[in-house]
Amino acid sequence: MSRRPARPGRRNGGGQRSPRRHQGAAASPDRAGGARPRQAVRSELGGEQVEGRHAVLELLAAGRRPVLRVLLAEDQDPSPQLDRIEQLASRRRVPVETVPRARLDAQARTEAPQGVVALARPLEPVALADLCAPGRDGVAPFLLVAAGITDPRNLGALLRSAECAGVTGVVLPRHRSARLSPTVAKTGAGAIEHLPFALVGGVPAALSELRDRGVWSVGLAGEVPQSLYDLPLGAGPVALVVGSEEKGLAPLVRRRCDAVAAIPQHGALPSLNVGVAGAIACFEVARQRAAAARER
Amino acid sequence: MSRRPARPGRRNGGGQRSPRRHQGAAASPDRAGGARPRQAVRSELGGEQVEGRHAVLELLAAGRRPVLRVLLAEDQDPSPQLDRIEQLASRRRVPVETVPRARLDAQARTEAPQGVVALARPLEPVALADLCAPGRDGVAPFLLVAAGITDPRNLGALLRSAECAGVTGVVLPRHRSARLSPTVAKTGAGAIEHLPFALVGGVPAALSELRDRGVWSVGLAGEVPQSLYDLPLGAGPVALVVGSEEKGLAPLVRRRCDAVAAIPQHGALPSLNVGVAGAIACFEVARQRAAAARER
Repeated sequence: MSRRPARPGRRNGGGQRSPRRHQGAAASPDRAGGARPRQAVRSELGGEQVEGRHAVLELLAAGRRPVLRVLLAEDQDPSPQLDRIEQLASRRRVPVETVPRARLDAQARTEAPQGVVALARPLEPVALADLCAPGRDGVAPFLLVAAGITDPRNLGALLRSAECAGVTGVVLPRHRSARLSPTVAKTGAGAIEHLPFALVGGVPAALSELRDRGVWSVGLAGEVPQSLYDLPLGAGPVALVVGSEEKGLAPLVRRRCDAVAAIPQHGALPSLNVGVAGAIACFEVARQRAAAARER
Repeated sequence: MSRRPARPGRRNGGGQRSPRRHQGAAASPDRAGGARPRQAVRSELGGEQVEGRHAVLELLAAGRRPVLRVLLAEDQDPSPQLDRIEQLASRRRVPVETVPRARLDAQARTEAPQGVVALARPLEPVALADLCAPGRDGVAPFLLVAAGITDPRNLGALLRSAECAGVTGVVLPRHRSARLSPTVAKTGAGAIEHLPFALVGGVPAALSELRDRGVWSVGLAGEVPQSLYDLPLGAGPVALVVGSEEKGLAPLVRRRCDAVAAIPQHGALPSLNVGVAGAIACFEVARQRAAAARER
């Protein structure tokens, strides 16, 4: 079903922490009183707490990292999604606890966890170099650089769209960016379970490294005459660079991009939402890559 | 700046209610006690209360309908957007009241009104036939049929993207759809001020009428082999039909569409968010229309 290329990296192994240690840290949230036990398993990248039905389903289905436990609110109507969550948890020997709604909501960090919270081993970042290697079936890297998206819902929505477009890796700056919080995980509807992430100290230096490794970077701007549609995006390794909600691409980031292009606008409003603009750009890359693959 | 075609319809006149009457109804929200005075100005389509900086700015800038008053929370840091709201309100002789934050929040119907609430004459629907006429500069109709989107954030986000893509009119069903609530207005970032809307009793009958009037309807589905990218979308009047979040296109709606197509997916996740899928489809129509215009 999935046409996703196999991805480089060390997501499925090589982690330094044992699942058991996390299980120990997270196994007794009700003993913690005022302290928040979930903070014991925070990582630099995040992902240690996943909420919402889609996101927890993908966490269990992807099987990419150990899941410590799943909490379900006890007063829920039956649903196929909940059944599937319980099936997958059982198959993967993940403990499922049915808890009072109040306890679930106290544990939740999103507004609407939909009665489901999972605790998992945090996601581990991969090296930028790993994202630049072709996939096992020779598919060229297709990267997304989220250069300063601070609203977790925007970042989550963009990751979901990027995953659907076939993005093979995501670059996030360590600072001035949303991390993979429960809100990002939930809005992303499970995208974080399928994408590898690299964390970088600075986006300009990362863009230089991408260039050295043969990845062509295209910055998305609102106001340049160059149309995204006129760029050759299907030909090889490419990285789309999306700036912040308020300020777009930072000046130095913009200068380091190999090209800067806009999605032509036809309305009266000044701009698209950043997550939607990123989604349209990702699918334009996907469209051109599919067309190029047909020609080969 | 805007390449939007002039739009048919009776949006700027012909309303049965006078602005004065609305002003009377809305002018004393603080006298109302437990009752919600804003309900006095509800219309079938909505739009009578607009919240958030972008949305209020566009309401004032578009100048398409009378604005009764603007409420600003008194404890806000200065911002260029707030200055611009005050300037435009002054130019249009709209009363601006600075009120305590608590009163603004009590009036607000969205979670984060950003310190700004405007009361306006509700939007009035236009006839479906009006949406099918070419624009003044001969631009073919480009319609969006939102066939059952119930989440107001999804609908608002889709309207914003549609406006940016040059959609010339929107068709909403009277039932089983979000109306133009404050949340739709805010998430739409002002799109509702620029788009004409037709309300229809049933989408299947509306699709038949569109066909009779020469508008080609394309339903968006997740799972069909026909790729959206292989359809001739730039050639003439077109209507994109987007189904509900949970169930997609209803069976009868689907049968009435002239074509049903998918955005090819390349990831592991089962589907895009409905608002994002609609945005990608709208921009594919825009891309093809722009290419066709260049060839002429």
